[in-house]
Amino acid sequence: MARIVMKFGGTSMAGIERIRSVAARVKREAAAGNQVAVVVSAMAGETDRLVGFCREASPLYDPREYDVVVSAGEQITSGLLAIALQAIDVPARSLLGWQLPIRTDTAFAKARIDTIDTDALEESFAAGAVAVIPGFQGVAPGQRITTLGRGGSDTSAVAVAAAIRADRCDIYTDVDGVYTTDPRIVPRARKLAKVTYEEMLELASVGAKVLQTRSVGLAMKEKVRVQVLSSFTDADAPMADTLPGTMIVGEEEAAFKENGDVERQLITGIAHDKNEAKITLTRVPDQPGTVASIFEPLAAANINVDMIIQNIAHQSASNGASSTSATDVTFTVPAADLARSIEALNQSREAIGFGELIHDTRVAKISVVGVGMRSHAGVASTMFTTLGARGINIQAISTSEIKVSVLIHEDETELAVRVLHTAYGLDAEAA
Amino acid sequence: MARIVMKFGGTSMAGIERIRSVAARVKREAAAGNQVAVVVSAMAGETDRLVGFCREASPLYDPREYDVVVSAGEQITSGLLAIALQAIDVPARSLLGWQLPIRTDTAFAKARIDTIDTDALEESFAAGAVAVIPGFQGVAPGQRITTLGRGGSDTSAVAVAAAIRADRCDIYTDVDGVYTTDPRIVPRARKLAKVTYEEMLELASVGAKVLQTRSVGLAMKEKVRVQVLSSFTDADAPMADTLPGTMIVGEEEAAFKENGDVERQLITGIAHDKNEAKITLTRVPDQPGTVASIFEPLAAANINVDMIIQNIAHQSASNGASSTSATDVTFTVPAADLARSIEALNQSREAIGFGELIHDTRVAKISVVGVGMRSHAGVASTMFTTLGARGINIQAISTSEIKVSVLIHEDETELAVRVLHTAYGLDAEAA
Repeated sequence: MARIVMKFGGTSMAGIERIRSVAARVKREAAAGNQVAVVVSAMAGETDRLVGFCREASPLYDPREYDVVVSAGEQITSGLLAIALQAIDVPARSLLGWQLPIRTDTAFAKARIDTIDTDALEESFAAGAVAVIPGFQGVAPGQRITTLGRGGSDTSAVAVAAAIRADRCDIYTDVDGVYTTDPRIVPRARKLAKVTYEEMLELASVGAKVLQTRSVGLAMKEKVRVQVLSSFTDADAPMADTLPGTMIVGEEEAAFKENGDVERQLITGIAHDKNEAKITLTRVPDQPGTVASIFEPLAAANINVDMIIQNIAHQSASNGASSTSATDVTFTVPAADLARSIEALNQSREAIGFGELIHDTRVAKISVVGVGMRSHAGVASTMFTTLGARGINIQAISTSEIKVSVLIHEDETELAVRVLHTAYGLDAEAA
Repeated sequence: MARIVMKFGGTSMAGIERIRSVAARVKREAAAGNQVAVVVSAMAGETDRLVGFCREASPLYDPREYDVVVSAGEQITSGLLAIALQAIDVPARSLLGWQLPIRTDTAFAKARIDTIDTDALEESFAAGAVAVIPGFQGVAPGQRITTLGRGGSDTSAVAVAAAIRADRCDIYTDVDGVYTTDPRIVPRARKLAKVTYEEMLELASVGAKVLQTRSVGLAMKEKVRVQVLSSFTDADAPMADTLPGTMIVGEEEAAFKENGDVERQLITGIAHDKNEAKITLTRVPDQPGTVASIFEPLAAANINVDMIIQNIAHQSASNGASSTSATDVTFTVPAADLARSIEALNQSREAIGFGELIHDTRVAKISVVGVGMRSHAGVASTMFTTLGARGINIQAISTSEIKVSVLIHEDETELAVRVLHTAYGLDAEAA
């Protein structure tokens, strides 16, 4: 017997027919003797509809009331799944965020989970019933409903799994696992049997949109084994624990060479992200405090700066006597924040003292990710050599312990991903 | 300063534009210095949508989960109205059934309100804020959501008004008040300035569908002054307390002859109901216990019998020696329950010992209602004479203290209502 959390997204809950096949899937896990808690999203489109109402009622809506409105979507699907389960003789009941309770802080519309009371869940398991929990919602001190921010249902599922010490948290989603790269770009991309939390965080944050980043961080902290599975394989498919999804686990478990699992590659995957914009400030004075004067106004505007490159300072020819040196500073921001970034920087133009502001949204960030690179040199140089050989110009570079990212021209994204996928030996064998 | 409960139905909440005009109306009451609690229905059509989901998920849905699903509709509109109020600078917050709490029994899907905790409401009033309360919902012991049954929002509003000792409970609805009869039948029907609880109960239960019957009963018990108003007069119309709606009040207040109020008529109104079916059982033995044997199986099937007529017993000619007498018994049931009634009666045919079962759905019940008839004889005879003069045949009669009802052929409904409206002096003066 295992204790399992199953999470189903909005597409899986979109209409009673689909809710019925979710129920069938839950029944198979329960019938196998497992203790099951299910976390559900709202029906696809429902949250957008409710958010739209709030915005229409007032662009400056009160987040506390917004939470009352938008949490209704998951409340509805929880009740419906409980009914669908009962209809196929699976004892079930819904347990809303305030009923469990799932206690959060008071950051309405983007709350963080503090604790989950497991008494009601343990009672439900003891009675042999499936607990159906709406994702995305909780309750703040003062008994007010909160929501966790868009995509928060993944986080709810991982938090419930951590609270009840589940053996596994199965996330059923539109894709059937995590791939070495986007299969639409590289048809020979392979599905990963296992990936570490750290790798998943890098892959998610650079564009492999399978799981909400926050839920991966929580899973890592709480050591929750997360499995990503497709919700669209038919109900007669093998049980979840033998389904070929992707397990997201700790580094030690990932390193294990298991039955049938291929030996881990140096590089786990290659991600790309076209939603970045590049900004270059020219002739910035090369003085202490200048860099801070650039990034302070951006931080104040809540804009997330990603890659930063400062060129080597060069002497200003125009003013030889006082020997003022100047430099160019290049960095990237989310493309959606470009306009606000330009505004913030221009307002601080005096303080920063830059020459020109040049911006470019026709860029893409390509990242190679893998815990293996910690112990292997040469990952970055393979990347630069491979791209250079195809004439792809690198505009910026950034690295972390398990990732090397480069900024290139947007038009070269697919080519770069393809050649890197081959260079790192990630291509699946031809059938 | 007055303390007022305002209740808005689904048509008033159907979409953000309408919610905005509800907010404007609430603002005017609050700006006049009143303490205001608002009770809201779900958007028109939303409850049907949610009920449809439950039925589709399982025709035998668990009412506890049904309540989780369908209560979401009012949760959504509560949050939205709070947002719309804040947008026009009216401090407001939603207070859900479980938050107040509105405590009910455990009759899920048709719960009854036990108590309403007023602490949160008093706090809200003290802070100068408008409380927005979802109608139709409460919470049962064990912290589970309940709903009050369809149309329950009227009852929620009256219960809240009783709990906070409101000066008035204003029910905004599709009609602009209670009329002496259906204005579609009698264009010269007059809107009543006042009507007593008892009259309203009779008018509602016989077809004047303005308020849920249960809410009127509760208002009578708790002495809540209820005002029925149109939600479709424009926002610049005079304030609610001067609007020409209909006040539903106790008999003493109704009898008062106020400024401009016309002196009360003997008869308050004339109602009609085409949703009845007539059943006649012929040659029923005229013995003790026979009547019980007819109505017991109907009661067991939860069928509400309305009018009952037992003809004078006549000697059975076929069996002169033993002198058995027999009688015909006629009664009415809701037309929707006719098939089940026939089934229940046929199953008890032996026990009852009737001859034939004759049924007819082409009947209508016409009722004249008025507390005035308590002290005035002749109301019934006026009715019979008036109908007789127009050749309308009376098939059954029933009376209560403040009502006389007759059953006639369905085709004569409009004619009967019209001639009675004139006979009792209810026609408005021609313009």
